[in-house]
Amino acid sequence: MTLDDSLRALEAYYGSMPPVAVMDVSVAGYDGDSLRLHAPLSSHVNDKGSAFGGSLVSVMTLAAWGLVTLRVEQAGLDAEVYVADSTVRYRAPLLADLQAEATLDAAGDWSTFARTLRERGRARVALTARIALPDGSTATEMQARYVAIRRPTANV
Amino acid sequence: MTLDDSLRALEAYYGSMPPVAVMDVSVAGYDGDSLRLHAPLSSHVNDKGSAFGGSLVSVMTLAAWGLVTLRVEQAGLDAEVYVADSTVRYRAPLLADLQAEATLDAAGDWSTFARTLRERGRARVALTARIALPDGSTATEMQARYVAIRRPTANV
Repeated sequence: MTLDDSLRALEAYYGSMPPVAVMDVSVAGYDGDSLRLHAPLSSHVNDKGSAFGGSLVSVMTLAAWGLVTLRVEQAGLDAEVYVADSTVRYRAPLLADLQAEATLDAAGDWSTFARTLRERGRARVALTARIALPDGSTATEMQARYVAIRRPTANV
Repeated sequence: MTLDDSLRALEAYYGSMPPVAVMDVSVAGYDGDSLRLHAPLSSHVNDKGSAFGGSLVSVMTLAAWGLVTLRVEQAGLDAEVYVADSTVRYRAPLLADLQAEATLDAAGDWSTFARTLRERGRARVALTARIALPDGSTATEMQARYVAIRRPTANV
C-alpha cells in the first residue's frame, strides 16, 4: 500500500464510524512525523459561535490515533490502537476551522514502539496534539497515551 | 423557571449546537447534585463496535457543563460557562449506551462557587464525570475544571 493509499484508507476509516462521519474530518497532511487533520467550524460550532470543546478533543484524539495507526502500518504490523488517557487544556476559543496536528511526545521514540509491539504484541506510546488559532498560537492542546495490541494473524 | 423547564431548556440548548445535535443526548436525571445524560451507542459506535473515545469525552464534557449551567441558574445568576481543562482515563471499552453522570469534585463547594461568581463576576469549579459500564463499574472517567463568567445585564 502506498502512503497515499494509506491516507485515503485512514479517511475512509474515519468516515465509517457514525460519530466521526458527522465531523467532516479530512487529512490535511502527513510527513511521517506529524499528521494534520482539518474539520470545518460549521460542523463543530457551539452556542458561543466557537468550536465545541468535545469537538476539539475528538479531532485531536482522531489525529493522534491516526498517527499511531499509520506508524503501525509503516512498521508492517497489524494492531488495534486504543486511547488510554488524555489531558487537555483549552487555552483560547477558536472561531475558525479546526486544524489539528498530532506528533510524538518529546520523550517518545517510534523505533522502540515498533520493536516493543513486534516482540511483545503490545506497546504504549505518548503523543501530543494541538489545535492552532489562525495566528499560529494554541487554541487547545492534548497529551495522550495510546496502546497498540497486535491482531492475531488471519492465516497461521 | 421551574426545574423541569430548566432541564428542557438545557436539552434544547444542547440540540442547538450542530456537533451536539448529532449526539442524540438527553437528560436522564438531575437531583441538584448530579446531572445524568444518556446517548445511544448507535450514534457513537467506533470501528471496534464500542463507543468512540471522542464521544465519551464529549458526553462527559456536556454533562459537567450542564451541571455548572444549572447551578448558575439556580443561584439566580447569568453567566457563560467554559471548560478550562480536563483529564480523562479510558478504563474499559463500552459496548452499551452512554450513561454519563457529572458531580462536583470532592473538594468543591457550590455555595463558594456561587458567592465568588456573584462578588467577582468570575468563578472556577472542579467537577468529576464518569460513564458507567452496564455492571456499574467505570468505562471512562474525567476530572475537569470549568470557568463561569457573568454576562453584563441587558437592562442597567
